[in-house]
Amino acid sequence: MLHATSLFAYPTMDHLPAAMAIEIFHNFTLLHDDIMDKADVRRGLPTVHKKYSENAAILSGDAMSILAFKYLAQENSASLPDILNLFSDTALEVCDGQQMDMDFESSSTVTIAEYLEMIRLKTAVLIASSLKIGALVSNAPLSDANLLYEYGINVGLAFQLQDDWLDVFGDPAVFGKKQGGDICANKKTYLLLRAIEKADQSSLAILTEWIEKKEFNPIEKVAAIKGVYEQTKVSEETHLLMLTYQNKALAALGKLAVSPEKKMVLEAFALEATERMK
Amino acid sequence: MLHATSLFAYPTMDHLPAAMAIEIFHNFTLLHDDIMDKADVRRGLPTVHKKYSENAAILSGDAMSILAFKYLAQENSASLPDILNLFSDTALEVCDGQQMDMDFESSSTVTIAEYLEMIRLKTAVLIASSLKIGALVSNAPLSDANLLYEYGINVGLAFQLQDDWLDVFGDPAVFGKKQGGDICANKKTYLLLRAIEKADQSSLAILTEWIEKKEFNPIEKVAAIKGVYEQTKVSEETHLLMLTYQNKALAALGKLAVSPEKKMVLEAFALEATERMK
Repeated sequence: MLHATSLFAYPTMDHLPAAMAIEIFHNFTLLHDDIMDKADVRRGLPTVHKKYSENAAILSGDAMSILAFKYLAQENSASLPDILNLFSDTALEVCDGQQMDMDFESSSTVTIAEYLEMIRLKTAVLIASSLKIGALVSNAPLSDANLLYEYGINVGLAFQLQDDWLDVFGDPAVFGKKQGGDICANKKTYLLLRAIEKADQSSLAILTEWIEKKEFNPIEKVAAIKGVYEQTKVSEETHLLMLTYQNKALAALGKLAVSPEKKMVLEAFALEATERMK
Repeated sequence: MLHATSLFAYPTMDHLPAAMAIEIFHNFTLLHDDIMDKADVRRGLPTVHKKYSENAAILSGDAMSILAFKYLAQENSASLPDILNLFSDTALEVCDGQQMDMDFESSSTVTIAEYLEMIRLKTAVLIASSLKIGALVSNAPLSDANLLYEYGINVGLAFQLQDDWLDVFGDPAVFGKKQGGDICANKKTYLLLRAIEKADQSSLAILTEWIEKKEFNPIEKVAAIKGVYEQTKVSEETHLLMLTYQNKALAALGKLAVSPEKKMVLEAFALEATERMK
């Protein structure tokens, strides 16, 4: 958000409340998602509901969501109604994305298109709106604000694909989450959906067997499914799709009516999304 | 909220979004409170987390909280920042009240003053803010908006005391909640706290015995504690305290600079708070 602001204005303390609103909102969604996903670890530390209690995590999350709106409402400009509207629409989309994500767990017919729509809602729209809000608070032209939104959607999609990839192939000590968490929870990631599409009969049997097993050794399950991912080469395919989104993000950034030097941070951010290890 | 608006302006469709915001916010708090309190029944029907799932209740509540702010932000007046600020402060107070309420469950040293502060936060401030927001959207003088807030706090306190009373002495078929729910959950209500203060040694022993019992027959527990409430006459005392708050509410209403005819609905509402059976 502040990077977007700095493209059009010198960021000051006046821009902080909106940035804090976005940061607090994002962390609220993590608190509640971790309850819903029964996640024990976040950023290498116990999750709030594990360390304190589920009730504490529900209520702290609620308060953080409200606090986000309180900070956003401090934005002292004529665009306050537009910003509030964009932010609340985005927040509702994030909820829709989380619901889709949970629905996918019990669905056996998730398509790649549905998966991409889910990660657009759950991850990409918040990055996109942060950038657009950053532009709006510095009175940028609407065309530039919308290009930043487009950039953000594509960086967000690339970011989430990398997140799925890191869950399987990342170093848990660096990534900060338990390795194979998505695999154990039967999350319909791009890796799994493409592996199902590409697997031969024997690999498909392995996937089906482990997905349907109610009781299992997590290390064995992760190793078995990772083996199929390697055999079907979905790791490489995921990387290619990430590059496609990265290029779309860079193209949107290219059209932005600001000097090339000012775009450098967001250029680097788009590149980082597919290279990050945590 | 709309009653407050109608004291100063003719309510129109323009006033509806703010009223909807308050109604949706209130219902969001009920969804999440029912999870935290493990309540099975609300308004005579299964609670959302019972009927669907806890995750559905968490996420629907989150979306409703966001939707409340979305509607509130549609308020098309110069007082939008003030209204958003009052609403988010109130919403945070409601969360504080719920946290206090939960903390009380595991505390053995709750004072009457702490209990009254808890119900002020958990119940009264939302009624008070609804009325104040209703006044602000119709450009009422700030002095009148503040008198309505004072009226709302006192009606809210009376309302919650009646709610505690109905849990024990109400007709569950009319009230819509399981009778004695507060007693079974060891809720530190005004009735219980005053009964502990007033009980003789043998009654105190009965209270302590049932509060500490991990396994119990709910019907027996409710009957035993209700017996102590009757013996200590805390039912009558609760009613007297309700009347005190009711009188304060009516006094604030009396000072309001609007015609007596216009005040009639809010006068009746204050009287109803202590007479309602559901």
